[in-house]
Amino acid sequence: MTAPQPLNDQEIRAFVCRHTDVFQDQQMLQVEEISDGNINFVYRVSDGQNSVILKQALPYIRIIGEGWPLPVDRIRIEAQALGFFNMCSPNSSPEVLHFERSQHVILMEDIGDYHNLRHVLIRGDKPTSIGSQLGQFLAMLHYTSSDFLLDSIAKKCMVASYLNPQLCSISEEVYFLDPFCDHERNNVSQGVRSMAQALWQDDELKLGVTQLRYQFMNDAQVLLHGDLHTGSVFVTQSAFKVIDPEFAFYGPAGFDLGVLLANLLLSYASQVGKSHVAQRDETQAYLIDQIEQLVNSYFGEFDALLQAKINDPVLQQQGFDTLFLAGVRESAMGFAGIEMTRRTIGIAHVADLDEIEDDERKTLAEMLSLTLAASLIKQRTKLTTTADLAALIKDCQASLPG
Amino acid sequence: MTAPQPLNDQEIRAFVCRHTDVFQDQQMLQVEEISDGNINFVYRVSDGQNSVILKQALPYIRIIGEGWPLPVDRIRIEAQALGFFNMCSPNSSPEVLHFERSQHVILMEDIGDYHNLRHVLIRGDKPTSIGSQLGQFLAMLHYTSSDFLLDSIAKKCMVASYLNPQLCSISEEVYFLDPFCDHERNNVSQGVRSMAQALWQDDELKLGVTQLRYQFMNDAQVLLHGDLHTGSVFVTQSAFKVIDPEFAFYGPAGFDLGVLLANLLLSYASQVGKSHVAQRDETQAYLIDQIEQLVNSYFGEFDALLQAKINDPVLQQQGFDTLFLAGVRESAMGFAGIEMTRRTIGIAHVADLDEIEDDERKTLAEMLSLTLAASLIKQRTKLTTTADLAALIKDCQASLPG
Repeated sequence: MTAPQPLNDQEIRAFVCRHTDVFQDQQMLQVEEISDGNINFVYRVSDGQNSVILKQALPYIRIIGEGWPLPVDRIRIEAQALGFFNMCSPNSSPEVLHFERSQHVILMEDIGDYHNLRHVLIRGDKPTSIGSQLGQFLAMLHYTSSDFLLDSIAKKCMVASYLNPQLCSISEEVYFLDPFCDHERNNVSQGVRSMAQALWQDDELKLGVTQLRYQFMNDAQVLLHGDLHTGSVFVTQSAFKVIDPEFAFYGPAGFDLGVLLANLLLSYASQVGKSHVAQRDETQAYLIDQIEQLVNSYFGEFDALLQAKINDPVLQQQGFDTLFLAGVRESAMGFAGIEMTRRTIGIAHVADLDEIEDDERKTLAEMLSLTLAASLIKQRTKLTTTADLAALIKDCQASLPG
Repeated sequence: MTAPQPLNDQEIRAFVCRHTDVFQDQQMLQVEEISDGNINFVYRVSDGQNSVILKQALPYIRIIGEGWPLPVDRIRIEAQALGFFNMCSPNSSPEVLHFERSQHVILMEDIGDYHNLRHVLIRGDKPTSIGSQLGQFLAMLHYTSSDFLLDSIAKKCMVASYLNPQLCSISEEVYFLDPFCDHERNNVSQGVRSMAQALWQDDELKLGVTQLRYQFMNDAQVLLHGDLHTGSVFVTQSAFKVIDPEFAFYGPAGFDLGVLLANLLLSYASQVGKSHVAQRDETQAYLIDQIEQLVNSYFGEFDALLQAKINDPVLQQQGFDTLFLAGVRESAMGFAGIEMTRRTIGIAHVADLDEIEDDERKTLAEMLSLTLAASLIKQRTKLTTTADLAALIKDCQASLPG
């Protein structure tokens, strides 16, 4: 039996015409491969006027090949999660036009007029309310999938349908294992090697990481996107789309918030790479504003939803909402520190840092990232307000050499 | 289509002979219904020399009928859990001779020479090491099914195969909802009605209950028996068998320990019903010893297992084992208080208390149970040693009127 193959252009044209009525003439269709991530095959199919996206999963990682197998069930989870996101927050994700389970293919809306948020931030654009939009989106997703709203049996069926063991296992390694030991998969710049070596010896830090990893592995609180970095968010000046939820699973609510927060903080840290001080200050002020928007809108919206309706009679108990949200905030701070660490010295870096051309400035940016990350993990129980977080960011930046 | 029916005697004889080779002559077999619990149909099939137990689940609760549906998948979970228990701790449960999924029937070893631990304790027998035996059994079960030992993917497959939404939902109601409000399902004796009313108003207590319930619903730490009261344990002077794990699911480790501890404490409280003081003191001293054995052997064994082998490299982090076990102890104390409360004023009482004939003494026993239960829930973070627990028990008993 031969291994499953990517669809060829002719098969893609036929598939699209069989499963949508967007196009008139199959032979007119242009197929363009636009795979941006590393894992799947993604194509834009267009007749010049209309277009759709076709995403195909094969049982291995695209850029590596059959040597790194990955179950195709991930695309079922992605299709299901995209639908759930749009159900919670209309238009928050590309519309799924068709999901063909037997071929592991999603046909979805083309969001070509939206731009990758990471690239938007790197080139210095400043969408004004993306922080609060994403905070509200996440709060709605987490609330809607939680025991606060769902019937206990329905929620456990949701947990079952989002069990995603292999992809969770990858996260458990690349977030929580590699960056906190001298792992061969790590990618540590010379400039921060001594900092990395110090953190590999830091037992207080590593105990915090272990506690957070245990939460990640065990606490099936809410449906998570599971990989919500700024490259999974596409934006216009006033709107956004969240994509690529193939790592979705039921886990601790703080994880998504922490990962997204971390990516804004990585963008913040990368500004240290800029020689133009006024520009740097302006962008950092913008990012602090977005960070505050994100955190405040997440907790504000979640709290408002809990005030409005908790279906479960026991969870209505006075005071539990506050305890619950405090726990989410604490773990979000910790998960943010973990994402920042892994994106600075782990296998998968971010362009925000990697594209800094001046080596010395790049080192400063990486140092800021690692310092802030360690503080977030160690001080996560103390960062109870957004002001505490903003103060920590300023303190860490002030402590940089030079 | 007619509803599924219990097997008749002739079908039972044929089933047993088809699926075991224990018996020579099908026509010689005696079938005796021995259903002790309320939910399933249980029969002993014997030829006078050898015997087996046949347990059949129907899609409803036996003593209520089709008006209370209950999914038959529970018996698959029971068969699977019995096998897992015996794999972890050989001979700790009846051997499953055959499981017939299509008919929802388990054939298992007859443990007729073992006696129901609740009845053993009620009649004043004192098996000397049951506490430590059960503590070791539970520690081994929880360790073996945890992320400490299992590969992350294997563990999540275990979680999936033990998802038990409907039976969990029942527990979420009868443990955590009913007893803490004035619910129509409750069964509150006149003598403790005012205490019950006070606890329904006790927000500190109810917040603790809510936190524990959220753990029960979300923390998929280890495979739990899920209903480990003293009626689910059968004993001889030197051995035990754990039965009836149809409520098994992945949940917080403290739950099983707490429920079992609670049932020993209920037996302790019921001694207040005895007029013979020396006998009462002797039995209470015995029960304190068993309680200390249970808790110390559970934590001693779990700790020893963790010292011997943690497969997961991150969870090997120094200090995490201690934090983990402290969390289990804290929640076990809380779950114990919840089980005691529900067994005193909820829908399903225990014979230990209900069979006390003198009304005044029965009230004292119920008061001791409720007082101790509330203290366990509220003080669960402070009960960090077995001595703390023993002191609390003595204090609560000393505070009784008269």
